[in-house]
Amino acid sequence: MTDSPEFDRLTAVSTSAPGRYDAELSGGWVVGGGVNGGYQLAVLGQALRAAVPAKPDPVVLSAHFLSAGEPGPAAVSVDVRREGGSVATVALDLVQGDTTRITALATCGDLARFAARAPDVRTSATEPAMPPPEECIRAADAPAEVRAFVPMLDRFDLRLDPAHAAWGFGEPGMTGVIAGWFRWADGREPDVLSLLTVCDVLPPVTFDLGMPGWAPTLELTLHLRAHPAPGWLKVRHETRNLAGGMFEEDCEIWDSAGRLVAQSRQLALVPRPM
Amino acid sequence: MTDSPEFDRLTAVSTSAPGRYDAELSGGWVVGGGVNGGYQLAVLGQALRAAVPAKPDPVVLSAHFLSAGEPGPAAVSVDVRREGGSVATVALDLVQGDTTRITALATCGDLARFAARAPDVRTSATEPAMPPPEECIRAADAPAEVRAFVPMLDRFDLRLDPAHAAWGFGEPGMTGVIAGWFRWADGREPDVLSLLTVCDVLPPVTFDLGMPGWAPTLELTLHLRAHPAPGWLKVRHETRNLAGGMFEEDCEIWDSAGRLVAQSRQLALVPRPM
Repeated sequence: MTDSPEFDRLTAVSTSAPGRYDAELSGGWVVGGGVNGGYQLAVLGQALRAAVPAKPDPVVLSAHFLSAGEPGPAAVSVDVRREGGSVATVALDLVQGDTTRITALATCGDLARFAARAPDVRTSATEPAMPPPEECIRAADAPAEVRAFVPMLDRFDLRLDPAHAAWGFGEPGMTGVIAGWFRWADGREPDVLSLLTVCDVLPPVTFDLGMPGWAPTLELTLHLRAHPAPGWLKVRHETRNLAGGMFEEDCEIWDSAGRLVAQSRQLALVPRPM
Repeated sequence: MTDSPEFDRLTAVSTSAPGRYDAELSGGWVVGGGVNGGYQLAVLGQALRAAVPAKPDPVVLSAHFLSAGEPGPAAVSVDVRREGGSVATVALDLVQGDTTRITALATCGDLARFAARAPDVRTSATEPAMPPPEECIRAADAPAEVRAFVPMLDRFDLRLDPAHAAWGFGEPGMTGVIAGWFRWADGREPDVLSLLTVCDVLPPVTFDLGMPGWAPTLELTLHLRAHPAPGWLKVRHETRNLAGGMFEEDCEIWDSAGRLVAQSRQLALVPRPM
């Protein structure tokens, strides 16, 4: 275990009873007051793979966030609701003590098998333009007090597109967009499990609307559409509808081969004024 | 009951036991081989209102479709997973006989209360341009053989934007877009319950890609963001990523006051060649 990449170690689960998987939420994934939601989704992804190994990819995962996760032990309960020839639908809960953190539904399959059976790809979405990583803003260069508040920044190498990062200097662009390059800090290549986390590691797009602060996710649905190629991932978040104290955040993840490998959308609460 | 609008009657539920609601799926909502998914979501919406009346609006609903619904009796089981001051998270199943049709999670609240507390609306999405309803193509004018196959077309007045309807004449536009105006056939005004259905009544966008046929939904997530104003609704569907035999379909619903009242995204299977 100690030789496996950090991300695999920190999301690992072990079976303790039928349909029950134990995990340890890492203090290294804390952001502000809680454990990052996308990281918890990868823990769910590990439990899904253990429960339905013939359908290793959560093609679509819908997660409702009930309370903020804390570093420490967690249990994932898995209930396979239906398993057919090509997909399985599974209900999951991530619980700490008596408190449910996340309740989720996933429809799982084998993306490699799907692609072999239906090789047609018609993506009309266009890859976002971004300066190369070396011309972007390293999250690792954030002030020490920010990094102390967001220990998860040490887990990965995030380079923010300067076109949407002026909020970092007190001048939010007011476009509702944040974008950047992502790779694991230890050189681990991206995979489907990574995408479960990557869709939720950028700062909330509300930073770019002049509303800094934590934006609690009510729900996040992720479509995993292809295995990512090795190399940098390009991640873009956008909101187009802030109302009623809530906003939607759409995320696209593109791989180094120029393929749209994942799309997610979350509904989150607008941060309270700090 | 007989004086209430048809939509309310056909989606009505009655309590038969704690957490259990009985419904009758209507043959009037059949499309091809099964009962329309959006109509079934409104049945879930009725059960949610009965179960958590203080949080009447499913602000976000994620539904995984396990099998095609059939006309006849159905039971909705409701499990309130958490109820806080402003939102409740609920797990639901729609079952016919021993077969689950839909398993879903909803986070419910009171949109009117949210809007009063946070009146700020910042929608940067732009309302789609469309010719007025009288210059669009009436679904009611579809050939008799089409209408016999899609009885649900009698439930509403749908006017398709001619810019994205040439597939009806054998010349798909290949844009991955379908749009139109919607209102209830009996003049009932739109409400939140209607939006649960309206997000799933247009033909699949794959028609516009030259791929006619039924496109089974794997999962649909809907954000309900505001109570719609009376009058026509403007509905637009788009896909930007068809791959692995699946496509995402994004839907926006705009009300007559020019407000983006709902956004949904589904992941569906590409129709098999007919």
